[in-house]
Amino acid sequence: MENVSHLSCINCGKEYKPLPDRYLCYDCGDKGLLEVEYDYEKVAANWSKEELANTADQRIWRYRSLLPIEDDTPLPPLAVGNTPIYESKKLAEELGLENIWIKDDGLNPTGSLKDRASAMAVVKAQEADAKIISCSSTGNAASSLAGNAASMGGKLETVIFVPGRAPGGKLAQLLIYGANVVSVQGDYQAAYDLSAAAIKKWGWYNRNAAINPYMVEGKKTSVLEMAEQMDFDLPDWLVFSVGDGCTIAGAWKALKDLKEIGFIEKVPRLLGVQAEGCAPITSSFYSGEPLTVVDENTIADSIAVGNPRNFVKAIRGVKNSNGEMINVSDEEIYEMMRLLGRTTGIFGEPAGVAGLAGIRKMVSKGEIKSNSRVGFVVTGNGLKDVKNAREAAKEPLSIKPDLDLLEKEFIQQGVIKG
Amino acid sequence: MENVSHLSCINCGKEYKPLPDRYLCYDCGDKGLLEVEYDYEKVAANWSKEELANTADQRIWRYRSLLPIEDDTPLPPLAVGNTPIYESKKLAEELGLENIWIKDDGLNPTGSLKDRASAMAVVKAQEADAKIISCSSTGNAASSLAGNAASMGGKLETVIFVPGRAPGGKLAQLLIYGANVVSVQGDYQAAYDLSAAAIKKWGWYNRNAAINPYMVEGKKTSVLEMAEQMDFDLPDWLVFSVGDGCTIAGAWKALKDLKEIGFIEKVPRLLGVQAEGCAPITSSFYSGEPLTVVDENTIADSIAVGNPRNFVKAIRGVKNSNGEMINVSDEEIYEMMRLLGRTTGIFGEPAGVAGLAGIRKMVSKGEIKSNSRVGFVVTGNGLKDVKNAREAAKEPLSIKPDLDLLEKEFIQQGVIKG
Repeated sequence: MENVSHLSCINCGKEYKPLPDRYLCYDCGDKGLLEVEYDYEKVAANWSKEELANTADQRIWRYRSLLPIEDDTPLPPLAVGNTPIYESKKLAEELGLENIWIKDDGLNPTGSLKDRASAMAVVKAQEADAKIISCSSTGNAASSLAGNAASMGGKLETVIFVPGRAPGGKLAQLLIYGANVVSVQGDYQAAYDLSAAAIKKWGWYNRNAAINPYMVEGKKTSVLEMAEQMDFDLPDWLVFSVGDGCTIAGAWKALKDLKEIGFIEKVPRLLGVQAEGCAPITSSFYSGEPLTVVDENTIADSIAVGNPRNFVKAIRGVKNSNGEMINVSDEEIYEMMRLLGRTTGIFGEPAGVAGLAGIRKMVSKGEIKSNSRVGFVVTGNGLKDVKNAREAAKEPLSIKPDLDLLEKEFIQQGVIKG
Repeated sequence: MENVSHLSCINCGKEYKPLPDRYLCYDCGDKGLLEVEYDYEKVAANWSKEELANTADQRIWRYRSLLPIEDDTPLPPLAVGNTPIYESKKLAEELGLENIWIKDDGLNPTGSLKDRASAMAVVKAQEADAKIISCSSTGNAASSLAGNAASMGGKLETVIFVPGRAPGGKLAQLLIYGANVVSVQGDYQAAYDLSAAAIKKWGWYNRNAAINPYMVEGKKTSVLEMAEQMDFDLPDWLVFSVGDGCTIAGAWKALKDLKEIGFIEKVPRLLGVQAEGCAPITSSFYSGEPLTVVDENTIADSIAVGNPRNFVKAIRGVKNSNGEMINVSDEEIYEMMRLLGRTTGIFGEPAGVAGLAGIRKMVSKGEIKSNSRVGFVVTGNGLKDVKNAREAAKEPLSIKPDLDLLEKEFIQQGVIKG
């Protein structure tokens, strides 16, 4: 890894060798999250936009000059990355904007942006000579880990801890990927504690975005990709839904990297959007006080994180970009699911579209100008949470099999003319 | 459309102008399905593999030299196509093979191969000056139509007829895409009949793969793409699950096209796989008798078609390729969901993986040799049918939050060593 200089503690600045299983600063404990630092001069000297354009691999590994991976580590085969980006005039108009670019990261192989982090976990676990990777989650982190590990064809196993109440539907994907799923009789904290004890006891690789510094590096590829897709002319605002803070921290990292190596001139402002029912990062962002753990009262389960571990990196990233944080209601999230679907053909999960509601609020407050260029990443596929989609959707027209009745209804609804 | 010569009736051979809303032969009625015929000399003269390799558009439209679309029709923006293909030694081994290539068409924008046909429907509807496209379905045809039409940003509406019993989950995706969903109080036949009457009365565009000749042309892009991804060296066998017959008919059409223009030398043998509980095409294939309508008793709902309309094209395609048909049980389909998931990280819906069970049967019968090269397309995303995935999956380990208990269990299961 000649491109990586070292890991640094975000709390005290202490430097560490970039070992694949170095998670936290010895001195600072839980507060001592580490950050991957690159030798930007070396990266810039050895890499160019032209070389990138001529790279055949469409997956996230095309950005390996800015990724902390060894040359010879076997890569998981799943086609993570290269998700499409769409410009939508219709959606822009409905949000009060002239332009918006939507990147659909729900089209990653297991259905979410988290594939980018989990693919990285599979690489780093091999570099650490681990045979088992573990995490505690019922959501996209778990399914992406299970899928990416499975794609190695038996070389790696996963052990995933879930609370007893985890819904069967969410378990299905994990189990189909062959994960060892441990349903812990207790709440989420019980599952987390047992996972922590097991990981420590058996030395498994820890795919926990809260403490694993390499996860942010995987997530940042979403913005690296967006930059390349937009010819390195990024929008004025980049908007993300925010849960544990790792994704928006990754966005900032990508911007910093691209600026440092001279691939972009101007850095977009970041807008982080949380759900009203669970917005500890927004609170801390504006109060300047340390983070207060809160309840998790939102239908957007992928960003329902009452005790986010990556809030320092997230807040720092948003502030460095001269950005903002804002909260939105569940009702607004449902509305955005419908709006996004009918204007673009993209089906996002609740957490995946929450940011759109934030954009609309910021536009109506005049904080985002209508002629600003805005970019947004849909972080998860709506098929992940069909129950909430059903809640968000209107009712179908229920009717007897009678053409005259149908005509009357359709004239009333404006589908056909009378 | 200089590349298209005419439409021909598969029953009597009568030729028609390739109008966008020409569905059936006037003389032969329901039996008179039409086929799109190309001027292969012209296509071959104006197109080359090199030109294709240098085409920037990654979507199915990169194959427009072999598609029946006008130069100036606006294309739906959704990123249909460019789905990944993986070679999996591990899966091959478990099936008794040396090599297998798996293409994951569940990663299309709305989650299935049917996006390829629906994107085509959106193009042809515009060429027919239609403002509304309609179909009757609760499945992938409907959701792909709704999504692709929505991506036009309001230029096209969809009216989708579903039987009253259609599960809410399946409706969610349609409704989020803004489709006008008509829930007909009655069975599937009642929904179909009302849709036929409405389409006729109001002149809507008919996206019904049973009679619309352009749908096969969209579906064939899956095999065109596979050919390009494999450097035009296709496998010995190409395997598809079979429901209404339109997909495997499309596969044959792609092979014929590629051979005629000299892009491939050797044509693979097609293997069509039906579910035991609903296998009218396999029966007719082997008996030589006309098709008998059957009940639909299988969990693989996307291929549960008791009265398939495209059986003539399907059977002809398989026979022309010197291919075979075979049936598999629901239990075998569940087993393949697990096998595919744990060896490759691909999560397929039941119908999407049925073909794998057919491959294993053919290998064990010696009809597919272990050193044959085999290609398979997963036609739909497992997230479309989480209920069946839950049935297919094993149970998670349920345990008290106790590390010693966990150790015992994991030693017993072989996850860790004692």
